[in-house]
Order: sequence, then structure tokens, then C-alpha cells
Amino acid sequence: MHPTHCPSSVAPSAATPAAQGYVMPAEFAPHDACWMLWPQRPDTWRLGAKPAQQAFVAVASAIAESETVYVGVNDDQYENARHQLPAHVRVVELSSNDAWMRDVGPTFLVHPDKGLALVDWEFNAWGGLKDGLYFPWDKDRRIRPKIAEMLGIPCFDVEVVLEGGAIHVDGEGTLITTEECLLNPNRNPGMDRATMERRLQDSLGIQKVIWLPRGCYLDETDGHVDNLCCFVGPAEVALTWCDDDTDPEYAICREARAVLEASTDAKGRTITVHPLPQPGPLTIAEDEASGIDRLASSHPRRPGDRMAASYVNFYIGNRVVVMPQLDPRHDATVMDILARLFPDRRVVGVPAREILLGGGNIHCITQQQPRP
Amino acid sequence: MHPTHCPSSVAPSAATPAAQGYVMPAEFAPHDACWMLWPQRPDTWRLGAKPAQQAFVAVASAIAESETVYVGVNDDQYENARHQLPAHVRVVELSSNDAWMRDVGPTFLVHPDKGLALVDWEFNAWGGLKDGLYFPWDKDRRIRPKIAEMLGIPCFDVEVVLEGGAIHVDGEGTLITTEECLLNPNRNPGMDRATMERRLQDSLGIQKVIWLPRGCYLDETDGHVDNLCCFVGPAEVALTWCDDDTDPEYAICREARAVLEASTDAKGRTITVHPLPQPGPLTIAEDEASGIDRLASSHPRRPGDRMAASYVNFYIGNRVVVMPQLDPRHDATVMDILARLFPDRRVVGVPAREILLGGGNIHCITQQQPRP
Repeated sequence: MHPTHCPSSVAPSAATPAAQGYVMPAEFAPHDACWMLWPQRPDTWRLGAKPAQQAFVAVASAIAESETVYVGVNDDQYENARHQLPAHVRVVELSSNDAWMRDVGPTFLVHPDKGLALVDWEFNAWGGLKDGLYFPWDKDRRIRPKIAEMLGIPCFDVEVVLEGGAIHVDGEGTLITTEECLLNPNRNPGMDRATMERRLQDSLGIQKVIWLPRGCYLDETDGHVDNLCCFVGPAEVALTWCDDDTDPEYAICREARAVLEASTDAKGRTITVHPLPQPGPLTIAEDEASGIDRLASSHPRRPGDRMAASYVNFYIGNRVVVMPQLDPRHDATVMDILARLFPDRRVVGVPAREILLGGGNIHCITQQQPRP
Repeated sequence: MHPTHCPSSVAPSAATPAAQGYVMPAEFAPHDACWMLWPQRPDTWRLGAKPAQQAFVAVASAIAESETVYVGVNDDQYENARHQLPAHVRVVELSSNDAWMRDVGPTFLVHPDKGLALVDWEFNAWGGLKDGLYFPWDKDRRIRPKIAEMLGIPCFDVEVVLEGGAIHVDGEGTLITTEECLLNPNRNPGMDRATMERRLQDSLGIQKVIWLPRGCYLDETDGHVDNLCCFVGPAEVALTWCDDDTDPEYAICREARAVLEASTDAKGRTITVHPLPQPGPLTIAEDEASGIDRLASSHPRRPGDRMAASYVNFYIGNRVVVMPQLDPRHDATVMDILARLFPDRRVVGVPAREILLGGGNIHCITQQQPRP
């Protein structure tokens, strides 16, 4: 039922990662690299994925300013990706069903002596055969073990359905997630909150889980936390924000803020919340929807559908923060806020509507490899 | 006409490898690793490639005794390869059309300061659309640049059609090849011997080319030198040998011996030749041929066809020599000879008829990565 996908060549001992002293660092801790995938499938990305590929190139280029970027690509797009990406980006063959490296890629751990390792979660394409976003997801499922083999690092097989975008950590013992996603029956039916907390503690070396009720309105990932809020430093959280009380997002962000401000982190600190205005609301245009293949097995993209747009979906690199540009009415404001929150990093804006049209944003298409 | 396949991320300067001080080391020099590919195509390998896969596992296991072994595999065979190969072999995704890493893989170079690099030759599946062994060869063609990207090393694009099995070097300035292959119009039409020598010198840092007229009888590679003879040390060459004057091989090996013994190497030394008795002659059995798919675009394997079997097609690892077991009448004799020629290495025999049935042998399916 639960085959071990992790390569035995780098099989760790039976003890849990936490018991061995591994922990998941915060995204704002130093990185050795960033991993991405190359967008390709025409039922996710309009016009044969060409506009999305340009956006991914811009994201990779921005991140590559301060860390090595690996872009994994299916063989049939290898030459095109190599030609489109800048010279210093490392293009490696890594078959995938789509391009969401945050969710299908490794959750990296570090150990003071043993160095780097990764967690290989179960994956069911955001909800399985009934609720999931596409079928099949066999290539996605092999990505984590393949990266473990390439890097020659231990791979911990954890029998929990979890995507990387469903969690955020501060690297000091605290994890934030949403009930909507991690306790969803379409992920781990029958697993209660206490069991899930224990698995997260065992797998990631965290001590405390802060549960937010829901993610962003209409988020097709079932409420990934990485589209709603994120740690920008210890005890500091950026949260998407909506002041229109007729918008369903209004209640969601207030509810999240209340939970965050009523919580303390693993070190007992009160959490400060930094609101980021939400873009839009943004909807799929007629000519955008018409450029997308419509298949029975994949999530439909219809004209007029509201997208789960959020500025929180940015990437924290070593010396840059790469943020999505989504709405001219708010882009500059958000850039100013992020520049203030990250005084030691340059904030780079990338036009990201093409990524949003695929169902996620910059954080969803990246995965940091921490420096041990 | 000649697209650059080498990734620009590791593009070397315009000067030739030799001008920059790179040289190709001998196979008997120390290695960091060995690269292989996973056999799969049913028109080359009988019974869905399962017997060949077992033979490849045995070869990889033997080599992995004394160096890291990477096995590149198409995504659809990734899980099977991972399960069949021993734990300490590194399985990486690397799409290919077939499994001849010697010929489609990198020719590695080393530099005293700059470390490792590789040459990316042109490739036309051993003879192109008319004489070649299969079509298409697009995945094979991308293997060298992909490995350069994975290792993060410079990749020198050389516009010469050449397979790794067509050359042997002593690492001290001498290269051996065959006219039948390198001067064949199906490889580099219009390129004369002097031009070819210059390209080899520029690309590999060698000074002298020893030209043997022909490779083994019926060798479908058009006479690759690596099935005929190889350096076992400086100024020492092992040569396949036939004492039956009714066999076409009889003249071929005598002719090669005469050229070798009349030559001096780049350092002016006379070459000593060590004959290895040839196996067989071996032919394809009825039940072997019947297990192979017959396609229009691939080289046919017919019952009764003689195979180009040779014991010279072995691999020199760091502390092992891995030799093909092909004929019980000669296996032990050859093992004794190799043990004498390689007193510091353990000689490991691997049953290799299944590899031979595919058209090559242990040397053809391996490629050493030298230690800089």
C-alpha cells in the first residue's frame, strides 16, 4: 500500500529525523541552492506554456542572483529549457507531471554533523483521484528520491500525504499550517490532529504546530499556508490581507490573524503579523482560458473563475526576495513593505500572472536547499 | 547544421582543450566514478531486456567495488532499475535511446588546476541514417551535455562524429584507433587523416595517433578499437587473437599486431602486444533471436549471425578489472592473462553473453570518470 520510494542507496537508519537531530531550517536561513521545474503541460499553462516559461525564466534569473538554481525538465523540453534559461542556471533532467517544485520537491533537513537530508512525503496531486488536480502524478512522485540520488543524501520516507506548500517553519521549532489542508480527508483520512502533530515533529524536528483554520478563498490546493502567510523572521509573519467585507477573503485573513496573534511560537514569543494587501480580486480572462487545453483528468480553467492571488507567495533567497507582480494598484506598496521586512535583501518583482493562471505562484514553483 | 549541444552554463573558452592544458587520462589511471546506462529497448535486448538488465547489474556491482557507479535510466524504468541495482549504486534520470555509455557518454578530460571537463562529440548512431544501428538517436545526443550540467563542468563541443569506443589512449600522448571507423565516410565524410589527427590532438591533448586498419570481423560499430585492443599500461597493449587461419579474424589481428609492433608511442617506446584468445566464434541462437523485437529502423539480429565477440572488451576499474565471460573454453585462460597484466587489481568475470547479444560488451556499456 505504501511502497518505499526512497532510494536504498541513501537509506537512513530507522530512527526518525528528529530523533537523529535533523531539523528543517527556515526559508530565510542561508541556502546552497534553489530547485525549480520547467512548466510544460498545455492543460495547466496557456499557449503551450510559452508565456509561463518566460515567467519561470524571470524567476530563476532573479533567484540565481544569489544562489545556484537547478531547473528540472522533462527530456522533450530539455533543449528548449536550456536555450531559454540563462547560462548560469543548471538544467537537469527530472521528469515531472507539472511544475510545482514546492509541493513535489524535497523538504530538506539539516544536521549539525551529518549535513543535508530530505523528507519524501506521500503525494496525491492535492487530493487524490476524486479531489486532486490532475492524474496521473507518477513522475511527480519520483522527484524527491531522484534528487536524493543526485545529491547523494539520505531520504526519509514519511507516510503522510503532504505538499511542501502546506507548511512553513521558523527553523526554531515552530510550524504553521492549515486544518483545511493537513486535516482534509482527501489527504490523510483518519489521521487526527494529535497524530499529525507527532508526525510533523518526528519528521521536521519542530516542537509546536500553529493551526490556522483555512487557506485563501478558492485555493485549489485546499488552503496551502504558503499562499496565506509566511514567516519573514522569528516570530514575524506576513499575512495576505483584505479590507473589503463583501469578499470571502475578509473573514479568512481576520481569522488567521486572530489565531496567530493569540499564539506563541515554540520559544514562547508572541507573533507579530504584517498584513500584505491582496491583489485583485483577479479572474481568468476569456482569451486566457481559451489558450488552455481542456482535459477530463485535469482541473478546468474557465473564463471568469476567480484565482487565489496573494502577494505572500514570494521566495526568500540568500540576498533577494522574489515577489510576484500581480496588480499595478498594489505591486509598489507590497514591494515597499517587503523591502522594510527584509532590509538585508533586494526585493525583485517578477510579472507573475502567467504563474497564477497555472494555479500557484513564485513560492509554489521553488524549493530552497538549505546550507547545512 | 552543427548546433551546439553543450550547455552554455559551463561553456569553456574558445581555445581548444589541448591549448588550455586538458588531457584525456588512460583508463588505468585513477577514477572518481563510472557511468553506465540501463538497457531497455526490446529491439536490442531480448525478452524485454530482463536478462541484459541482470548482466548490467552484475557489471555495475563489480565496478562499484572500487568506485562510485552512476546508472542513467529513462524515467519509465527508474523504479525498476532502482530496485534491481544494489543500494550503493547511484541511479540518476538520464534519457537514452539505448545503453552504450562508452559511445554516447562523455570523453572526460583533466587539467592540473581546472579539474574535470568533457568533450561532446557529434553522434550519428554508428553511421547515420543509412549505415547506423537505430533511429532516432536524439536522447543519446543529449547525454553528454546533461552530464556536464549535473557535474557542473565545462563541456567542449567538438564537431567530429566519434564514439568513445573508437579510441583508446595511454594518457601519455598516444591514441589508438582504426581507419575503418574514424575515416569511414559514414562518420566524417571528407575529413582526411591529417585533419582527423589534428582534431584528436586539439580535443584530447594527445600527440600521436596509431592507426590500425580494421576492427574485429563483423563488428557493427565499423571496427571500434575497444573491441580489438586496448592499453593495459604504458606501451602495453592487449589484442584479441585468433589462431584459426580459416577465420577472417586471423588476418585482422595479425595485421593489427604488425602495426602495433612496428609503431612507437608518443614517448618513443616500442609497444608490447599481449594476445587474448578470442571466444567462439559465437553465433546468435534461434531462441535468442526470437526474443528480440524486429523493427524497420533498428539493426536486425538473425539466428546464426556471428557476433563480434572479444575478451578485450573489459573495464579497468580502480582496483578491479571486470571482464566478460563468453566461452567456457577460454574464460579461465583469459582471466589468468589479465591477472598477470593487472597484478594490483582483482579480475572479476561477469557472464556477458546477454550484453554481447545487444552488440557490444562490458567496455561498451561503461565510461570512466577520471580523478582530476
